[in-house]
Amino acid sequence: MKLKPRNPDFVTTIHKKLEGQYFMKLVGFEITDIKAGQITGRLKVEQKHKQQHGFVHGGVTATLMDIVMGFAAYSLVEENQGVVTANLDVDFHHPGITDELEVIGKVDKPGKMLSFCSAEIYALNGEERTRIATAKSIMATIKGG
Amino acid sequence: MKLKPRNPDFVTTIHKKLEGQYFMKLVGFEITDIKAGQITGRLKVEQKHKQQHGFVHGGVTATLMDIVMGFAAYSLVEENQGVVTANLDVDFHHPGITDELEVIGKVDKPGKMLSFCSAEIYALNGEERTRIATAKSIMATIKGG
Amino acid sequence: MKLKPRNPDFVTTIHKKLEGQYFMKLVGFEITDIKAGQITGRLKVEQKHKQQHGFVHGGVTATLMDIVMGFAAYSLVEENQGVVTANLDVDFHHPGITDELEVIGKVDKPGKMLSFCSAEIYALNGEERTRIATAKSIMATIKGG
Amino acid sequence: MKLKPRNPDFVTTIHKKLEGQYFMKLVGFEITDIKAGQITGRLKVEQKHKQQHGFVHGGVTATLMDIVMGFAAYSLVEENQGVVTANLDVDFHHPGITDELEVIGKVDKPGKMLSFCSAEIYALNGEERTRIATAKSIMATIKGG
Repeated sequence: MKLKPRNPDFVTTIHKKLEGQYFMKLVGFEITDIKAGQITGRLKVEQKHKQQHGFVHGGVTATLMDIVMGFAAYSLVEENQGVVTANLDVDFHHPGITDELEVIGKVDKPGKMLSFCSAEIYALNGEERTRIATAKSIMATIKGG
Repeated sequence: MKLKPRNPDFVTTIHKKLEGQYFMKLVGFEITDIKAGQITGRLKVEQKHKQQHGFVHGGVTATLMDIVMGFAAYSLVEENQGVVTANLDVDFHHPGITDELEVIGKVDKPGKMLSFCSAEIYALNGEERTRIATAKSIMATIKGG
Repeated sequence: MKLKPRNPDFVTTIHKKLEGQYFMKLVGFEITDIKAGQITGRLKVEQKHKQQHGFVHGGVTATLMDIVMGFAAYSLVEENQGVVTANLDVDFHHPGITDELEVIGKVDKPGKMLSFCSAEIYALNGEERTRIATAKSIMATIKGG
Repeated sequence: MKLKPRNPDFVTTIHKKLEGQYFMKLVGFEITDIKAGQITGRLKVEQKHKQQHGFVHGGVTATLMDIVMGFAAYSLVEENQGVVTANLDVDFHHPGITDELEVIGKVDKPGKMLSFCSAEIYALNGEERTRIATAKSIMATIKGG
Protein backbone atom coordinates (compact mmCIF):
# COMPACT_ATOMS: atom_id res chain seq x y z
CA MET A 1 0.00 0.00 0.00
CA LYS A 2 1.32 3.44 -0.98
CA LEU A 3 0.91 5.77 1.99
CA LYS A 4 0.47 9.50 1.55
CA PRO A 5 1.89 11.93 4.08
CA ARG A 6 -0.41 14.80 5.11
CA ASN A 7 2.57 16.88 6.24
CA PRO A 8 4.78 17.43 3.15
CA ASP A 9 7.74 18.32 5.38
CA PHE A 10 7.57 15.16 7.43
CA VAL A 11 11.24 14.29 6.90
CA THR A 12 12.40 17.64 8.29
CA THR A 13 9.89 17.41 11.13
CA ILE A 14 11.14 13.94 12.09
CA HIS A 15 14.76 15.09 12.05
CA LYS A 16 13.82 17.88 14.48
CA LYS A 17 12.01 15.43 16.77
CA LEU A 18 15.01 13.11 16.79
CA GLU A 19 17.09 15.82 18.48
CA GLY A 20 15.01 15.44 21.63
CA GLN A 21 15.12 11.62 21.66
CA TYR A 22 17.51 11.45 24.61
CA PHE A 23 16.93 7.79 25.39
CA MET A 24 17.48 6.85 21.77
CA LYS A 25 20.80 8.70 21.95
CA LEU A 26 21.74 6.87 25.15
CA VAL A 27 21.08 3.59 23.34
CA GLY A 28 23.01 4.79 20.28
CA PHE A 29 20.35 3.92 17.72
CA GLU A 30 20.52 5.59 14.29
CA ILE A 31 17.64 6.18 11.88
CA THR A 32 18.97 5.33 8.41
CA ASP A 33 15.91 5.80 6.19
CA ILE A 34 12.73 7.85 6.45
CA LYS A 35 9.82 7.18 4.10
CA ALA A 36 6.14 8.03 4.44
CA GLY A 37 4.84 5.26 6.69
CA GLN A 38 8.13 3.38 6.94
CA ILE A 39 11.22 4.00 9.06
CA THR A 40 14.46 2.00 9.11
CA GLY A 41 17.31 2.14 11.60
CA ARG A 42 20.49 0.40 12.70
CA LEU A 43 22.27 -0.26 15.96
CA LYS A 44 25.91 -1.26 16.45
CA VAL A 45 25.64 -3.75 19.29
CA GLU A 46 28.01 -3.28 22.22
CA GLN A 47 28.29 -4.85 25.67
CA LYS A 48 26.06 -2.13 27.14
CA HIS A 49 23.14 -3.45 25.06
CA LYS A 50 23.33 -6.97 26.46
CA GLN A 51 21.95 -9.09 29.25
CA GLN A 52 23.65 -11.79 31.29
CA HIS A 53 23.79 -14.41 28.50
CA GLY A 54 25.47 -12.06 26.03
CA PHE A 55 22.29 -11.59 24.00
CA VAL A 56 20.78 -8.25 23.04
CA HIS A 57 18.56 -7.14 25.94
CA GLY A 58 14.82 -7.45 25.33
CA GLY A 59 14.49 -3.83 26.41
CA VAL A 60 16.78 -2.74 23.58
CA THR A 61 14.72 -4.69 21.08
CA ALA A 62 11.48 -3.21 22.44
CA THR A 63 12.96 0.30 22.38
CA LEU A 64 14.08 0.11 18.75
CA MET A 65 10.72 -1.36 17.69
CA ASP A 66 8.82 1.39 19.51
CA ILE A 67 10.93 4.13 17.90
CA VAL A 68 10.61 2.98 14.28
CA MET A 69 6.87 2.34 14.59
CA GLY A 70 6.29 5.64 16.39
CA PHE A 71 8.06 7.67 13.70
CA ALA A 72 6.40 5.64 10.93
CA ALA A 73 3.03 6.66 12.37
CA TYR A 74 4.27 10.21 12.93
CA SER A 75 5.29 10.50 9.26
CA LEU A 76 1.62 10.25 8.27
CA VAL A 77 -0.13 12.67 10.64
CA GLU A 78 -0.80 16.34 10.07
CA GLU A 79 1.70 19.04 10.90
CA ASN A 80 -0.02 20.03 14.15
CA GLN A 81 -0.50 16.46 15.35
CA GLY A 82 1.64 14.00 17.26
CA VAL A 83 1.44 10.31 18.11
CA VAL A 84 1.77 8.37 21.34
CA THR A 85 2.12 4.63 21.78
CA ALA A 86 -1.07 3.13 23.22
CA ASN A 87 0.12 -0.47 22.96
CA LEU A 88 3.48 -2.07 22.14
CA ASP A 89 3.65 -5.83 21.67
CA VAL A 90 6.87 -7.70 20.91
CA ASP A 91 7.31 -11.39 20.00
CA PHE A 92 10.82 -12.70 20.53
CA HIS A 93 11.71 -15.44 18.03
CA HIS A 94 15.46 -15.88 18.50
CA PRO A 95 18.12 -14.63 20.90
CA GLY A 96 19.92 -11.58 19.50
CA ILE A 97 23.50 -12.70 18.87
CA THR A 98 25.06 -10.14 16.60
CA ASP A 99 27.20 -7.02 16.22
CA GLU A 100 24.54 -5.12 14.32
CA LEU A 101 20.77 -4.89 14.23
CA GLU A 102 18.49 -3.57 11.53
CA VAL A 103 14.95 -2.54 12.38
CA ILE A 104 12.11 -1.67 10.03
CA GLY A 105 8.84 -0.20 11.25
CA LYS A 106 5.80 0.58 9.16
CA VAL A 107 2.17 1.58 9.31
CA ASP A 108 -0.09 -1.30 8.29
CA LYS A 109 -3.37 0.54 8.70
CA PRO A 110 -3.31 4.30 9.14
CA GLY A 111 -6.26 6.03 10.74
CA LYS A 112 -7.32 9.45 11.96
CA MET A 113 -7.43 8.33 15.57
CA LEU A 114 -5.45 5.08 15.64
CA SER A 115 -2.65 3.70 13.48
CA PHE A 116 -1.82 0.00 13.49
CA CYS A 117 1.91 -0.53 12.96
CA SER A 118 4.29 -3.46 12.71
CA ALA A 119 8.05 -3.91 12.90
CA GLU A 120 10.73 -6.49 12.29
CA ILE A 121 14.24 -6.64 13.68
CA TYR A 122 17.11 -8.49 12.08
CA ALA A 123 20.44 -9.66 13.47
CA LEU A 124 23.03 -9.00 10.77
CA ASN A 125 25.90 -11.46 10.68
CA GLY A 126 27.92 -11.06 7.49
CA GLU A 127 25.64 -12.02 4.62
CA GLU A 128 23.08 -13.53 6.96
CA ARG A 129 19.97 -11.75 8.20
CA THR A 130 18.05 -13.46 11.00
CA ARG A 131 14.71 -12.03 12.05
CA ILE A 132 14.97 -12.16 15.84
CA ALA A 133 11.69 -10.45 16.74
CA THR A 134 8.51 -8.97 15.34
CA ALA A 135 6.36 -6.31 16.96
CA LYS A 136 3.14 -4.46 16.49
CA SER A 137 1.80 -1.32 18.05
CA ILE A 138 -1.25 0.87 18.22
CA MET A 139 -0.34 4.53 17.92
CA ALA A 140 -2.88 7.16 18.97
CA THR A 141 -2.97 10.52 17.23
CA ILE A 142 -2.90 13.51 19.56
CA LYS A 143 -3.18 17.25 19.07
CA GLY A 144 0.02 19.24 19.07
CA GLY A 145 3.22 18.24 17.35
CA MET B 1 -1.66 -16.89 45.45
CA LYS B 2 1.41 -17.92 47.46
CA LEU B 3 4.13 -18.96 45.03
CA LYS B 4 6.77 -21.49 45.99
CA PRO B 5 10.30 -21.19 44.63
CA ARG B 6 11.87 -24.45 43.42
CA ASN B 7 15.36 -23.02 43.84
CA PRO B 8 15.76 -22.14 47.55
CA ASP B 9 18.69 -19.83 46.72
CA PHE B 10 16.77 -17.79 44.16
CA VAL B 11 17.65 -14.44 45.79
CA THR B 12 21.38 -15.12 45.55
CA THR B 13 21.01 -16.47 42.03
CA ILE B 14 19.14 -13.35 40.92
CA HIS B 15 21.78 -11.07 42.46
CA LYS B 16 24.42 -12.94 40.43
CA LYS B 17 22.41 -12.57 37.23
CA LEU B 18 21.98 -8.86 37.82
CA GLU B 19 25.75 -8.37 37.51
CA GLY B 20 25.55 -9.25 33.82
CA GLN B 21 22.54 -6.99 33.10
CA TYR B 22 24.57 -4.41 31.21
CA PHE B 23 21.64 -2.67 29.59
CA MET B 24 19.86 -2.39 32.93
CA LYS B 25 23.00 -0.72 34.27
CA LEU B 26 23.10 1.68 31.31
CA VAL B 27 19.52 2.64 32.13
CA GLY B 28 20.32 2.93 35.85
CA PHE B 29 17.45 0.78 37.08
CA GLU B 30 17.67 -0.67 40.60
CA ILE B 31 15.93 -3.79 41.92
CA THR B 32 14.66 -2.92 45.40
CA ASP B 33 12.80 -6.06 46.44
CA ILE B 34 13.01 -9.74 45.48
CA LYS B 35 10.26 -12.14 46.49
CA ALA B 36 9.31 -15.52 45.04
CA GLY B 37 7.26 -14.60 41.99
CA GLN B 38 7.39 -10.83 42.57
CA ILE B 39 10.12 -8.27 41.83
CA THR B 40 10.07 -4.54 42.53
CA GLY B 41 12.42 -1.85 41.28
CA ARG B 42 12.92 1.90 41.06
CA LEU B 43 14.38 4.33 38.58
CA LYS B 44 15.49 7.93 39.21
CA VAL B 45 14.36 9.64 36.04
CA GLU B 46 16.91 11.84 34.27
CA GLN B 47 16.99 13.61 30.91
CA LYS B 48 18.62 10.58 29.30
CA HIS B 49 15.42 8.57 29.93
CA LYS B 50 13.19 10.95 28.05
CA GLN B 51 11.79 11.57 24.59
CA GLN B 52 11.15 14.85 22.79
CA HIS B 53 8.13 15.90 24.90
CA GLY B 54 9.95 15.47 28.21
CA PHE B 55 8.10 12.25 29.04
CA VAL B 56 9.74 8.98 30.04
CA HIS B 57 10.58 7.12 26.81
CA GLY B 58 8.34 4.17 26.00
CA GLY B 59 11.46 2.06 25.57
CA VAL B 60 12.45 2.77 29.19
CA THR B 61 9.01 1.72 30.37
CA ALA B 62 9.13 -1.46 28.28
CA THR B 63 12.65 -2.25 29.52
CA LEU B 64 11.75 -1.93 33.20
CA MET B 65 8.59 -4.02 32.72
CA ASP B 66 10.54 -6.75 30.92
CA ILE B 67 13.19 -6.89 33.65
CA VAL B 68 10.85 -7.20 36.63
CA MET B 69 8.65 -9.79 34.92
CA GLY B 70 11.67 -11.76 33.70
CA PHE B 71 13.19 -11.98 37.16
CA ALA B 72 9.79 -12.72 38.73
CA ALA B 73 9.50 -15.75 36.43
CA TYR B 74 13.16 -16.63 37.02
CA SER B 75 12.60 -16.66 40.80
CA LEU B 76 10.29 -19.67 40.38
CA VAL B 77 12.23 -21.97 38.05
CA GLU B 78 14.67 -24.70 39.03
CA GLU B 79 18.34 -24.03 39.67
CA ASN B 80 19.46 -25.34 36.27
CA GLN B 81 16.78 -23.50 34.32
CA GLY B 82 16.47 -20.03 32.86
CA VAL B 83 13.71 -17.97 31.30
CA VAL B 84 13.44 -15.99 28.08
CA THR B 85 10.75 -13.53 27.09
CA ALA B 86 8.54 -14.98 24.36
CA ASN B 87 6.12 -12.05 24.33
CA LEU B 88 6.13 -8.60 25.95
CA ASP B 89 3.02 -6.45 25.72
CA VAL B 90 2.79 -2.95 27.19
CA ASP B 91 -0.30 -0.70 27.48
CA PHE B 92 0.51 2.97 27.98
CA HIS B 93 -2.15 4.74 30.07
CA HIS B 94 -0.55 8.09 30.87
CA PRO B 95 2.57 9.98 29.83
CA GLY B 96 5.39 9.47 32.34
CA ILE B 97 5.97 12.87 33.96
CA THR B 98 7.99 12.24 37.08
CA ASP B 99 11.38 12.15 38.76
CA GLU B 100 10.98 8.58 39.94
CA LEU B 101 9.34 5.39 38.74
CA GLU B 102 8.35 2.29 40.68
CA VAL B 103 7.80 -0.97 38.84
CA ILE B 104 6.32 -4.20 40.17
CA GLY B 105 6.37 -7.43 38.18
CA LYS B 106 4.81 -10.72 39.18
CA VAL B 107 3.93 -14.17 37.96
CA ASP B 108 0.19 -14.57 37.54
CA LYS B 109 0.23 -18.15 36.34
CA PRO B 110 3.45 -20.13 36.71
CA GLY B 111 3.99 -23.19 34.52
CA LYS B 112 6.67 -25.72 33.68
CA MET B 113 7.00 -24.48 30.12
CA LEU B 114 5.34 -21.04 30.13
CA SER B 115 4.81 -18.43 32.84
CA PHE B 116 2.23 -15.68 32.40
CA CYS B 117 3.39 -12.49 34.11
CA SER B 118 2.09 -8.97 34.61
CA ALA B 119 3.58 -5.67 35.69
CA GLU B 120 2.57 -2.18 36.69
CA ILE B 121 4.62 1.00 36.63
CA TYR B 122 3.93 4.06 38.74
CA ALA B 123 5.05 7.66 38.42
CA LEU B 124 5.89 8.86 41.93
CA ASN B 125 5.22 12.54 42.55
CA GLY B 126 5.41 13.32 46.26
CA GLU B 127 2.52 11.46 47.91
CA GLU B 128 0.90 10.71 44.57
CA ARG B 129 1.29 7.44 42.67
CA THR B 130 -0.02 7.39 39.10
CA ARG B 131 -0.08 4.11 37.24
CA ILE B 132 1.27 5.10 33.84
CA ALA B 133 1.40 1.69 32.19
CA THR B 134 0.59 -1.98 32.63
CA ALA B 135 2.27 -4.90 30.91
CA LYS B 136 2.06 -8.62 30.55
CA SER B 137 4.50 -11.17 29.26
CA ILE B 138 4.86 -14.81 28.44
CA MET B 139 8.13 -16.19 29.75
CA ALA B 140 9.42 -19.50 28.38
CA THR B 141 11.46 -21.80 30.59
CA ILE B 142 14.73 -22.97 29.05
CA LYS B 143 17.44 -25.41 30.10
CA GLY B 144 20.56 -23.93 31.61
CA GLY B 145 20.69 -21.13 34.14
CA MET C 1 -11.35 2.68 41.56
CA LYS C 2 -14.98 3.82 41.62
CA LEU C 3 -16.06 4.50 38.06
CA LYS C 4 -18.75 7.04 37.25
CA PRO C 5 -21.11 6.49 34.34
CA ARG C 6 -21.75 9.53 32.15
CA ASN C 7 -25.02 8.04 30.89
CA PRO C 8 -27.27 7.59 33.96
CA ASP C 9 -29.46 5.09 32.04
CA PHE C 10 -26.57 2.83 31.07
CA VAL C 11 -28.25 -0.32 32.41
CA THR C 12 -31.35 0.21 30.24
CA THR C 13 -29.18 1.15 27.27
CA ILE C 14 -27.12 -2.02 27.62
CA HIS C 15 -30.24 -4.19 27.86
CA LYS C 16 -31.44 -2.66 24.58
CA LYS C 17 -28.10 -3.32 22.90
CA LEU C 18 -28.14 -6.92 24.05
CA GLU C 19 -31.24 -7.57 21.96
CA GLY C 20 -29.20 -7.14 18.79
CA GLN C 21 -26.30 -9.35 19.96
CA TYR C 22 -27.19 -12.21 17.61
CA PHE C 23 -23.88 -14.02 17.90
CA MET C 24 -24.06 -13.84 21.69
CA LYS C 25 -27.49 -15.46 21.45
CA LEU C 26 -26.15 -18.17 19.15
CA VAL C 27 -23.50 -18.93 21.77
CA GLY C 28 -26.09 -18.81 24.57
CA PHE C 29 -24.17 -16.44 26.82
CA GLU C 30 -26.09 -14.59 29.55
CA ILE C 31 -25.15 -11.29 31.21
CA THR C 32 -25.85 -11.71 34.92
CA ASP C 33 -24.66 -8.41 36.39
CA ILE C 34 -24.25 -4.88 35.02
CA LYS C 35 -22.31 -2.28 36.99
CA ALA C 36 -20.65 0.92 35.85
CA GLY C 37 -17.36 -0.28 34.39
CA GLN C 38 -17.89 -3.97 35.24
CA ILE C 39 -19.95 -6.67 33.53
CA THR C 40 -20.39 -10.29 34.60
CA GLY C 41 -21.87 -13.18 32.65
CA ARG C 42 -22.31 -16.94 32.65
CA LEU C 43 -22.39 -19.70 30.06
CA LYS C 44 -23.79 -23.21 30.47
CA VAL C 45 -21.26 -25.26 28.54
CA GLU C 46 -22.63 -27.73 25.99
CA GLN C 47 -21.07 -29.88 23.28
CA LYS C 48 -21.56 -27.11 20.72
CA HIS C 49 -19.06 -24.92 22.64
CA LYS C 50 -16.26 -27.47 22.44
CA GLN C 51 -13.32 -28.43 20.25
CA GLN C 52 -11.96 -31.86 19.44
CA HIS C 53 -10.46 -32.57 22.89
CA GLY C 54 -13.69 -31.83 24.74
CA PHE C 55 -12.40 -28.46 26.01
CA VAL C 56 -14.22 -25.15 25.65
CA HIS C 57 -13.26 -23.72 22.25
CA GLY C 58 -10.82 -20.80 22.34
CA GLY C 59 -13.23 -18.87 20.16
CA VAL C 60 -15.93 -19.17 22.83
CA THR C 61 -13.52 -17.88 25.46
CA ALA C 62 -12.47 -14.98 23.23
CA THR C 63 -16.10 -14.16 22.43
CA LEU C 64 -17.20 -14.01 26.08
CA MET C 65 -14.17 -11.90 27.00
CA ASP C 66 -14.85 -9.46 24.17
CA ILE C 67 -18.50 -9.08 25.15
CA VAL C 68 -17.98 -8.36 28.85
CA MET C 69 -15.14 -5.92 28.19
CA GLY C 70 -17.06 -4.20 25.40
CA PHE C 71 -20.12 -3.62 27.56
CA ALA C 72 -17.95 -2.61 30.53
CA ALA C 73 -16.46 0.14 28.35
CA TYR C 74 -19.88 0.97 26.92
CA SER C 75 -21.29 1.46 30.43
CA LEU C 76 -18.99 4.47 30.88
CA VAL C 77 -19.42 6.41 27.63
CA GLU C 78 -21.95 9.17 26.94
CA GLU C 79 -25.46 8.45 25.71
CA ASN C 80 -24.67 9.34 22.10
CA GLN C 81 -21.42 7.36 21.99
CA GLY C 82 -20.53 3.77 21.29
CA VAL C 83 -17.42 1.61 21.60
CA VAL C 84 -15.63 -0.71 19.22
CA THR C 85 -12.88 -3.19 20.00
CA ALA C 86 -9.54 -1.99 18.61
CA ASN C 87 -7.53 -4.83 20.16
CA LEU C 88 -8.48 -8.07 21.94
CA ASP C 89 -5.75 -10.13 23.57
CA VAL C 90 -6.40 -13.43 25.35
CA ASP C 91 -3.95 -15.53 27.42
CA PHE C 92 -5.02 -19.15 27.86
CA HIS C 93 -3.85 -20.57 31.19
CA HIS C 94 -5.74 -23.85 31.46
CA PRO C 95 -7.98 -25.96 29.23
CA GLY C 96 -11.65 -25.24 29.88
CA ILE C 97 -13.08 -28.44 31.36
CA THR C 98 -16.38 -27.53 32.95
CA ASP C 99 -20.16 -27.34 32.66
CA GLU C 100 -20.29 -23.64 33.44
CA LEU C 101 -18.16 -20.57 32.88
CA GLU C 102 -18.20 -17.23 34.67
CA VAL C 103 -16.67 -14.19 32.99
CA ILE C 104 -15.97 -10.78 34.51
CA GLY C 105 -14.91 -7.81 32.41
CA LYS C 106 -13.95 -4.39 33.65
CA VAL C 107 -12.47 -1.07 32.66
CA ASP C 108 -9.01 -0.60 34.15
CA LYS C 109 -8.34 2.82 32.69
CA PRO C 110 -11.23 4.73 31.14
CA GLY C 111 -10.51 7.48 28.65
CA LYS C 112 -12.32 9.81 26.30
CA MET C 113 -10.83 8.16 23.23
CA LEU C 114 -9.52 4.81 24.47
CA SER C 115 -10.51 2.54 27.35
CA PHE C 116 -8.15 -0.15 28.60
CA CYS C 117 -10.11 -3.16 29.83
CA SER C 118 -9.35 -6.56 31.34
CA ALA C 119 -11.29 -9.77 31.88
CA GLU C 120 -11.04 -13.08 33.66
CA ILE C 121 -12.86 -16.31 32.93
CA TYR C 122 -13.45 -19.07 35.44
CA ALA C 123 -14.38 -22.72 35.02
CA LEU C 124 -16.90 -23.52 37.74
CA ASN C 125 -16.77 -27.09 39.04
CA GLY C 126 -18.85 -27.45 42.22
CA GLU C 127 -17.12 -25.32 44.86
CA GLU C 128 -14.01 -24.91 42.75
CA ARG C 129 -13.28 -21.89 40.55
CA THR C 130 -10.34 -22.21 38.15
CA ARG C 131 -9.24 -19.17 36.20
CA ILE C 132 -8.72 -20.60 32.73
CA ALA C 133 -7.89 -17.40 30.85
CA THR C 134 -7.29 -13.68 31.21
CA ALA C 135 -7.77 -11.05 28.55
CA LYS C 136 -7.29 -7.39 27.92
CA SER C 137 -8.65 -5.09 25.29
CA ILE C 138 -8.44 -1.57 23.98
CA MET C 139 -11.88 -0.16 23.28
CA ALA C 140 -12.20 2.94 21.09
CA THR C 141 -15.01 5.42 21.69
CA ILE C 142 -17.02 6.29 18.59
CA LYS C 143 -19.81 8.75 17.85
CA GLY C 144 -23.31 7.36 17.73
CA GLY C 145 -24.83 4.88 20.15
CA MET D 1 9.60 -19.44 3.83
CA LYS D 2 8.87 -23.01 2.73
CA LEU D 3 7.68 -24.95 5.75
CA LYS D 4 8.18 -28.71 6.03
CA PRO D 5 5.58 -30.85 7.76
CA ARG D 6 6.94 -33.50 10.14
CA ASN D 7 3.76 -35.53 9.85
CA PRO D 8 3.39 -36.51 6.16
CA ASP D 9 -0.32 -37.24 6.68
CA PHE D 10 -1.11 -33.84 8.15
CA VAL D 11 -3.99 -33.17 5.74
CA THR D 12 -5.79 -36.37 6.74
CA THR D 13 -5.06 -35.73 10.40
CA ILE D 14 -6.50 -32.22 10.19
CA HIS D 15 -9.65 -33.47 8.45
CA LYS D 16 -10.14 -35.93 11.34
CA LYS D 17 -9.67 -33.18 13.92
CA LEU D 18 -12.20 -30.97 12.16
CA GLU D 19 -14.94 -33.53 12.86
CA GLY D 20 -14.72 -32.73 16.58
CA GLN D 21 -14.70 -28.92 16.09
CA TYR D 22 -18.26 -28.49 17.39
CA PHE D 23 -18.04 -24.74 17.92
CA MET D 24 -16.66 -24.25 14.42
CA LYS D 25 -19.68 -26.16 13.12
CA LEU D 26 -22.03 -24.00 15.18
CA VAL D 27 -20.45 -20.94 13.58
CA GLY D 28 -20.61 -22.56 10.12
CA PHE D 29 -16.98 -21.90 9.19
CA GLU D 30 -15.45 -23.97 6.36
CA ILE D 31 -11.77 -24.74 5.82
CA THR D 32 -11.14 -24.36 2.08
CA ASP D 33 -7.39 -24.98 1.78
CA ILE D 34 -4.83 -26.88 3.85
CA LYS D 35 -1.13 -26.41 3.23
CA ALA D 36 1.85 -27.08 5.47
CA GLY D 37 1.94 -24.03 7.73
CA GLN D 38 -0.98 -22.23 6.07
CA ILE D 39 -4.74 -22.71 6.40
CA THR D 40 -7.50 -20.82 4.57
CA GLY D 41 -11.21 -20.77 5.28
CA ARG D 42 -14.45 -19.02 4.42
CA LEU D 43 -17.63 -18.03 6.22
CA LYS D 44 -20.97 -17.10 4.68
CA VAL D 45 -22.09 -14.29 6.96
CA GLU D 46 -25.65 -14.49 8.33
CA GLN D 47 -27.58 -12.54 10.94
CA LYS D 48 -26.49 -14.99 13.65
CA HIS D 49 -22.86 -13.82 13.19
CA LYS D 50 -23.63 -10.18 13.89
CA GLN D 51 -23.78 -7.70 16.72
CA GLN D 52 -26.20 -4.82 17.29
CA HIS D 53 -24.80 -2.57 14.51
CA GLY D 54 -25.11 -5.23 11.83
CA PHE D 55 -21.34 -5.84 11.76
CA VAL D 56 -19.67 -9.22 12.09
CA HIS D 57 -19.24 -9.91 15.81
CA GLY D 58 -15.70 -9.56 17.14
CA GLY D 59 -16.07 -13.01 18.66
CA VAL D 60 -16.67 -14.50 15.21
CA THR D 61 -13.54 -12.78 13.89
CA ALA D 62 -11.49 -13.99 16.86
CA THR D 63 -12.85 -17.53 16.47
CA LEU D 64 -11.97 -17.79 12.78
CA MET D 65 -8.50 -16.36 13.38
CA ASP D 66 -7.86 -18.82 16.23
CA ILE D 67 -8.96 -21.79 14.11
CA VAL D 68 -6.82 -21.07 11.05
CA MET D 69 -3.73 -20.27 13.11
CA GLY D 70 -4.23 -23.32 15.33
CA PHE D 71 -4.48 -25.69 12.39
CA ALA D 72 -1.59 -23.95 10.62
CA ALA D 73 0.58 -24.70 13.66
CA TYR D 74 -0.89 -28.19 13.94
CA SER D 75 0.08 -28.93 10.31
CA LEU D 76 3.74 -28.69 11.29
CA VAL D 77 3.99 -30.75 14.49
CA GLU D 78 4.75 -34.46 14.76
CA GLU D 79 2.07 -37.13 14.52
CA ASN D 80 1.87 -37.67 18.28
CA GLN D 81 1.79 -33.97 19.14
CA GLY D 82 -0.92 -31.37 19.39
CA VAL D 83 -1.06 -27.61 19.81
CA VAL D 84 -2.92 -25.31 22.17
CA THR D 85 -3.33 -21.56 21.94
CA ALA D 86 -1.26 -19.81 24.61
CA ASN D 87 -2.05 -16.30 23.36
CA LEU D 88 -4.47 -14.91 20.78
CA ASP D 89 -4.25 -11.23 19.86
CA VAL D 90 -6.59 -9.57 17.36
CA ASP D 91 -6.39 -6.03 15.92
CA PHE D 92 -9.65 -4.78 14.45
CA HIS D 93 -9.08 -2.38 11.53
CA HIS D 94 -12.53 -2.01 10.00
CA PRO D 95 -16.07 -3.07 10.88
CA GLY D 96 -17.02 -6.31 9.12
CA ILE D 97 -19.76 -5.36 6.63
CA THR D 98 -20.03 -8.24 4.19
CA ASP D 99 -21.79 -11.44 3.17
CA GLU D 100 -18.60 -13.46 3.11
CA LEU D 101 -15.31 -13.59 4.96
CA GLU D 102 -12.02 -15.14 3.95
CA VAL D 103 -9.44 -15.95 6.59
CA ILE D 104 -5.81 -17.00 6.11
CA GLY D 105 -3.64 -18.21 8.98
CA LYS D 106 0.00 -19.13 8.80
CA VAL D 107 3.03 -19.99 10.88
CA ASP D 108 5.58 -17.17 10.83
CA LYS D 109 8.14 -18.84 13.05
CA PRO D 110 7.75 -22.53 13.82
CA GLY D 111 9.43 -23.97 16.90
CA LYS D 112 9.61 -27.18 18.88
CA MET D 113 7.91 -25.66 21.88
CA LEU D 114 6.28 -22.48 20.57
CA SER D 115 5.00 -21.45 17.14
CA PHE D 116 4.40 -17.80 16.30
CA CYS D 117 1.47 -17.45 13.91
CA SER D 118 -0.37 -14.65 12.14
CA ALA D 119 -3.68 -14.32 10.36
CA GLU D 120 -5.61 -11.91 8.18
CA ILE D 121 -9.34 -11.71 7.58
CA TYR D 122 -10.95 -10.13 4.53
CA ALA D 123 -14.48 -8.92 3.91
CA LEU D 124 -15.38 -9.98 0.37
CA ASN D 125 -17.73 -7.63 -1.46
CA GLY D 126 -17.88 -8.47 -5.14
CA GLU D 127 -14.42 -7.78 -6.56
CA GLU D 128 -13.35 -5.91 -3.45
CA ARG D 129 -11.34 -7.44 -0.60
CA THR D 130 -11.05 -5.35 2.56
CA ARG D 131 -8.76 -6.55 5.32
CA ILE D 132 -10.88 -6.00 8.41
CA ALA D 133 -8.56 -7.48 11.03
CA THR D 134 -5.16 -9.02 11.62
CA ALA D 135 -4.21 -11.39 14.40
CA LYS D 136 -1.25 -13.19 15.84
CA SER D 137 -0.98 -16.09 18.22
CA ILE D 138 1.50 -18.13 20.16
CA MET D 139 0.75 -21.82 19.86
CA ALA D 140 2.31 -24.23 22.36
CA THR D 141 3.17 -27.77 21.29
CA ILE D 142 1.82 -30.47 23.61
CA LYS D 143 2.21 -34.24 23.78
CA GLY D 144 -0.62 -36.30 22.37
CA GLY D 145 -2.49 -35.59 19.17
